Order: sequence, then C-alpha cells, then structure tokens
Amino acid sequence: MATKASLKTPKGTRDWVGQNVHLRDDILRTITTVLERHGGTPFDTPVFELRSILAEKYGEESRLIYNLEDQGGEACSLRYDLTVPFARWLSTRSDVQHVKRYQVANVYRRDQPVISRGRLREFYHGHLRPMIPDAEILCIIAEVFEALKIGVTVKLNDRKVLDGLFEVAGVSTDKVRTVSSAVDKLDKAPWDEVRKELLEKGLSDEVADRVGSYVQRSGELREMIKRLESDAELATNARLGGGLADMKLLASYLEAMDVADKVSFDLSLARGLDYYTGLIYEVVVVEDNDGQSPPPQVGSIAAGGRYDDLVGMYGWRPLPCVGLSFGIDRIFTLLDARRKKKQKSGGPDLRVQAEVYIMAFGDGDGFDGLLTERMRVARQLWSAGVRAEFSAKVRPKPQEQFNASDGVPVAVILGQEELEAGQVRVKRLHVGDRNVQVKDKGQLVPMEGLVAEVKKLLASTASD
Amino acid sequence: MATKASLKTPKGTRDWVGQNVHLRDDILRTITTVLERHGGTPFDTPVFELRSILAEKYGEESRLIYNLEDQGGEACSLRYDLTVPFARWLSTRSDVQHVKRYQVANVYRRDQPVISRGRLREFYHGHLRPMIPDAEILCIIAEVFEALKIGVTVKLNDRKVLDGLFEVAGVSTDKVRTVSSAVDKLDKAPWDEVRKELLEKGLSDEVADRVGSYVQRSGELREMIKRLESDAELATNARLGGGLADMKLLASYLEAMDVADKVSFDLSLARGLDYYTGLIYEVVVVEDNDGQSPPPQVGSIAAGGRYDDLVGMYGWRPLPCVGLSFGIDRIFTLLDARRKKKQKSGGPDLRVQAEVYIMAFGDGDGFDGLLTERMRVARQLWSAGVRAEFSAKVRPKPQEQFNASDGVPVAVILGQEELEAGQVRVKRLHVGDRNVQVKDKGQLVPMEGLVAEVKKLLASTASD
Repeated sequence: MATKASLKTPKGTRDWVGQNVHLRDDILRTITTVLERHGGTPFDTPVFELRSILAEKYGEESRLIYNLEDQGGEACSLRYDLTVPFARWLSTRSDVQHVKRYQVANVYRRDQPVISRGRLREFYHGHLRPMIPDAEILCIIAEVFEALKIGVTVKLNDRKVLDGLFEVAGVSTDKVRTVSSAVDKLDKAPWDEVRKELLEKGLSDEVADRVGSYVQRSGELREMIKRLESDAELATNARLGGGLADMKLLASYLEAMDVADKVSFDLSLARGLDYYTGLIYEVVVVEDNDGQSPPPQVGSIAAGGRYDDLVGMYGWRPLPCVGLSFGIDRIFTLLDARRKKKQKSGGPDLRVQAEVYIMAFGDGDGFDGLLTERMRVARQLWSAGVRAEFSAKVRPKPQEQFNASDGVPVAVILGQEELEAGQVRVKRLHVGDRNVQVKDKGQLVPMEGLVAEVKKLLASTASD
Repeated sequence: MATKASLKTPKGTRDWVGQNVHLRDDILRTITTVLERHGGTPFDTPVFELRSILAEKYGEESRLIYNLEDQGGEACSLRYDLTVPFARWLSTRSDVQHVKRYQVANVYRRDQPVISRGRLREFYHGHLRPMIPDAEILCIIAEVFEALKIGVTVKLNDRKVLDGLFEVAGVSTDKVRTVSSAVDKLDKAPWDEVRKELLEKGLSDEVADRVGSYVQRSGELREMIKRLESDAELATNARLGGGLADMKLLASYLEAMDVADKVSFDLSLARGLDYYTGLIYEVVVVEDNDGQSPPPQVGSIAAGGRYDDLVGMYGWRPLPCVGLSFGIDRIFTLLDARRKKKQKSGGPDLRVQAEVYIMAFGDGDGFDGLLTERMRVARQLWSAGVRAEFSAKVRPKPQEQFNASDGVPVAVILGQEELEAGQVRVKRLHVGDRNVQVKDKGQLVPMEGLVAEVKKLLASTASD
C-alpha cells in the first residue's frame, strides 16, 4: 500500500478543483478580453522545447530549467517562460513583421523553495516605433487591473539607464549582468545584503557604494527624469542619455493615455533575465480595491520589458519585441482571499447544481422504480440544454430523492398511472418550506409538453 | 547561426496560432457545455507526477512515458493520461464519494512515429450502480458529436466478455492482457498480422484461430448479445455471462436514452491500457454531417471505459469509476478540414480586425502627426471596450493610414483645426468603394460625444 505522503503532487505543484478552476478561468477571461480589444491573437507552443532553443537565454537562472531524461530521442527541456518559445517561432517566420500575440500556459522552474508558478499570459508586439507599443502595454496593464479591481503600481526602469548608471559607478562591462541580478533583489532584501553580494562578485567597496547611491532612488516618472538629467556626472554617459530620452517620450505617451499616475520610475528594478534590452517593468499591488487592506503579500503580479535582440540571436533576422507576463497564480491568490472573506465557505464546492431533478414515486412491491422512464425524460431535457439529474438507483426511496433534490429549483415527477395516461408532473421545489412543499402537487402535463413547461418554470424561478 | 531545422518544435509537437486556437477553443467550449449540463465540475492536475504514481498502470505502454531528468529532486514523469492523476487524487479524498469531473489538458507519449496527442478532456463518475453512469457517458458522446455535427459510431465491448472469450478459446490467464493488446490492433491491421503476433506471444495455432473466430464479430448490440448467448460453448463461462448481463442492462438504458442506434458491439475492441475492468468504448467517425464524405482518416476521436480497481490500487480505498476521453487534436483535424473546404484561405489569420482606426491628417511641415492625441482617443475607446488601432508612426502618411484601415468599419479622423475646436470627425468606412469614400466626409462630433457616436455607428454597421 502506498503511503499517503507518496500520493501527493510533486513539490511546487497542486491540483485544481471546482470553484478554483472557475475563478482561475474568470481571471483568464478578463485578461483575454482586454488583450483581444488591443488586437491580440491567441498562440500556443509545446510544453517542452529542444534544449538548444533555451540555451544561453536566461543567464544565472538557466540552472532552474527542468530537463527531460535522455530516453533516446531529442534533448528537450520544459519551457521556462513563454518569451523564448515565441522568439523561436518568430525567428523563422519571415512573413510575420508585426504581430500581437498572447499565450495562456504554465511555465516550469526548479526554484528552491519550490513555489507554484502557475499560468502566465503574455502579450507581444513585433517591429514598431520605440515606446509606442511599450506605452500600449502599460495601458493594457492599467485596463486589466482596473477590470480585476486590484490597485497596482507599475515599477519602471530601463536597461540602458541601468547599464549607464553601472558604467558611471565603475562596474566593468563583464560584470554588468551579474551586478544587475544582485540589484534586482532589493525588493526583497535590504541594501546591506545586496552590497555583500556585490562585494562577493568582485566589486570594490567604493564601486558598490556608488551603485547603492544610484539604485536606491525611485519616484514619480517626470520628477526622476529631471533628477537624473540634472546630475552632472550621469550626463556624460551616452547610453544613459539614450535611455532617458526614451523615458521622456514614454512619459508623454503615458500622459496622453492617462496612465502616468500608475507608474513609478524605480532604479532598483533590474529583472533577472538576460534578454531585456530597454524598458522593463514589474507590477506590484498597492491596495485591494474592495477596501480590505493590506492585501496578501504576493510579490509582483505582472512583469515584462523590451527584448530587441532575442529573435536575432537565432541568427535569421532581428525583430524588436516588447512583452508582458501576468502571474496568474499570484492574481488567483489575491482574488481567492477576497472571495473567501466574502463567503466563508469550506473547501471547493464539487457539486454543480442541477436545474431539474427527475423523481419516480410508486406504491408497494409492484413499483419498479421507472428507471428507464427517468432516463428517457433526462435525455429529452439534456437535448434541450437543461441540466437534469436523477437517482442512479433502480428503486430509489422518496426521501432519498427529496434529499438529493435539495437546492434544485424544479422537479419532474413520474408515476405509473400518470405515465400510462402519457403524463408527468412538473413541480417547483420550494427550498426549506415543507408545508408549501407538501401541499403543492405541481402540474400534470402531457409528455410532449414537458420540456416547454420545465423551461417556463425555470424562467420564472430565475426571475424571482 | 542556428540552422532553420534546429529552430523547430520537438518531434510530435506543434505551435498553435490565431484561428487554429479559436477553432480549438470552440471545440473545447462545445464539449464543456455538454459536460457541465451533466453536472461536470472542472479539474486540473500538474503536467508531471511522481514517477511512482504512474508505475504499473499502463501495461506494455509504460515504456512510452516521458521521464524528467534526475536533477537532484523528486523522480517525476510527464502525465501519460488524465485518468491516473485523477485516481491519485480520489485515492486520498475519502470525503468524495461521488464526483463528475472533467479536465482539459495535454498528455505526453513517446510514440514512434511520434504523433501529436493534443488535448484530452475527460469525464468521470464515482460510486454508482452498474451501467447507469456508463449509459450516461454514451449519451454524452451522442450529445457532443451532435453538437459538433460529426456523424459517429461508438464501438462497445466489455473486458469481462473479452476475458471470457479468451478463456473459452484456451488462452492462459497470464497471457490475457498481452493477447488483448494484440487483438486491439485489428482496427488498423489485418487478422493475419495479429495472428502472427499472437503466435509470437506463445499461443498455439489452434488457440489463435479460436481467438480469431470470436474477435472478428461485431454488429448491432441486441443482436450480438443474442448470438453470444446462443453459443453453447460460451454459455459455460461465468465471467462472460456476467459481462453479457451487463450488456443487456446497458441495451435497455441506451434504448431509453435514444442512443442505441449510435453503438455497435465490437468484440475486437480491447483497448491497450491495463486498468479497464468492464465496459470499454471507442468513437469512430462514420460521416461528416456536412455531406462531404469521406472524412479525413483520423482514427478514434473519443474513448474510455470502466476502471473499478484503479483507485483501490493506491491502497487507501476502492472506488469504481467510468471515464471518457476526447481526442481534441483529432477532432480539430476533422473540423479544420471542413473549415478549409469552406473558406479556402491560406494559413492562419494572425490579424484581429479592429473596430475603429484612428487617423490624423494635416498639411505641410507644420503637421506633427498628432500622435499623443491619437493615443488619447484610443484610450477612451479601449476603456469603453472598443477594439481601436492607430499607426505606430509619429507622422503617418494618409495613404498608409487608409491601407492600414482596410476592412475596419469605422474611422476616427483627427485634424489640427477640429481639435482646437474640441471636435473630431467620425466616419463609416465603405470597403472597396473609393467614390463613396471620398465624398463621405463623415460627421463632426464634440470630443465628449466621440465614444457614443462610434458605438452608434458600430451598431449600425453590425446590422447591415
């Protein structure tokens, strides 16, 4: 016999049941609606890719990739994100110059401690003028979280600005990405810890402190741009200057789209992945719009950026892209907490309520339960699109059938005599009111009129 | 530079784009609607399971399981079907006595030649009286393929009948499952080939021929039951007798549910998997209901059966189950062929048609393209749920904007003068009619009335 512990799902994964799936699907539908409004077309890729496709795309995170065992076929790995598979597809589709695509899928990362990564949903543009698609993505973020009623701030930064800062601070070119990875931890760890990591990575005390003095700044977009422009030392760096020019363009677009008040320019935002080349962003929760604050701590619930070189890395053609990914599991955690506060129900509800319960009553030993007759009626109702149920017993007792119909709005009642006359009884079920229940015998209708009568009754209960 | 060949998806997998995803989603939605009508609740499990969960569940097919590489964590494998993960879940949920669940998910099999297995969707019952849920599953099959307009036959058999036949034919108990696997190939291979395999598996010529004389029979359900009952030799086998009694019960239920004419009792149907214990079925296409026959050869498009012992194999509690799985990829292939016959379009359409195209016109060098004004209008329309687009150029040419708006029903036109007066032009686009197009200057509306006017125009074009 297997132990119960051995009958679990693998670490970091879970089963989804009933209401939880419905909530997850609601979230996905809300996001898709916004993406399709912006011209998004759906896209799907395999759960595993050739290992070579994923190689050298993720920097230090590459060690977290799940590989498939060598069983004599191609060397494959589970997808680590949805960006690289999309870039792989774009790299050979020379007929596609511009596409907005979205994808709903799980990604797999061997994190320690293992956490559930859930589904992501991403959205991309192809070749377009700088900052225009970037601004549209930020507008999409605003629309999605308005629709989900989650108050958010979008932290922005730009890889060109960040790399420029590191240059000015004295970080050597070969250390820029690894310093970037360390700095990205500032949202979870204090500066002292990050500083220690920078020293371990070979930075001098002086350089580390200069990095620290820059990356701990954040604030309103226009104001931060002004502060950085007025810094004489930074003004000498061409790369940083290019990044700031982009940010100014972006600021004007965000003001036009009325989303400027949703963003903050945060120099500590670095994003771990290697492939970003320009604007990067992460969405954090600031308040739960139902007024119940503080919301659960879930980290960033959406993130993305511009990756202009990734498609070109496959050697066939360059194609600038911007992308965005929603952390569906984290959004689920937020909204599930909100739902639970409201309903206080225990566990996922597995039962889907039927609209009609089909019963059979009869007297004595001669009564055979009318099973096939109940089936015949069920089939008629199913064919008419009605959710109908009946007892799976051959001769169910009356009380059993009453209990099973608890909460179902309409009953169809079969009796031997009525059937012989080509009739059935259709009755509204009055929840919790035994007296009404017993007095109300329902209505005799001819078998041919059954479906119409049931639909009429259902419509009247719905309008109560 | 990577070769183009190295930029493909792994063998047996594919990318899904645009219209193809929409068609697949339509199929899934059609099936879900039927399943929810029958009380189905959605369910989802991880893409990989602990390897021990999958062990000894699939007989000879076990060698087709994909394993994850040992990277220092738990030993895991990709799910091979959706039945075993569900049984794993049920085995420890002692609070669940009866559940109808469905799951939409991919499964992974290392077949040679590798073929795409796509998504499956399954539906299960828990503890219920024999043949009642089985009959409901067959009714669900009928409803689903009626809704999809695909003409089908459901091939039925029963493991007890089949095992009984093998016993009477002289197959030793230890060879029953392997003989069963060989016989199951009769839908693709001629009897001579299957016979050869049986001899290789150690059957004598005589036993093989007796097996052959039985399993090549098929026909209408009641008629086949009668034929088998009247066979004096078979009548002596208790197991076969039990199976036939079940089949008679099933026949009466199917007649009541008006699906008896959809089924055929086929003694060659064996199903490869170890875990079936009673009724088994496979759905094959007989005609494409649009009258275009013959349909593409796709093999069985749905299949399932009763597995009363699988949950108990985990050692915690027994729970009889019946299940059904739809081969979504194969159904997709059928319906995609039908769609292509109708529309003769080339390749998947990546573009989602906008409802409104926002243009800007102006004269001479002083015209700045009104980009942020176009963005402001776009944001208003997006917030109102309207699919709106604009050129991602700073100063787009008139002709470029006309070309980009091809097929879009409504244009919003911005001009410097109108904007200064707080106005924009809203215009219906007349596809392909240049003269009407040039004459119709559209309508000047105040900026505040823009959204309402656009919605009015969209409603009027929709009703054309």
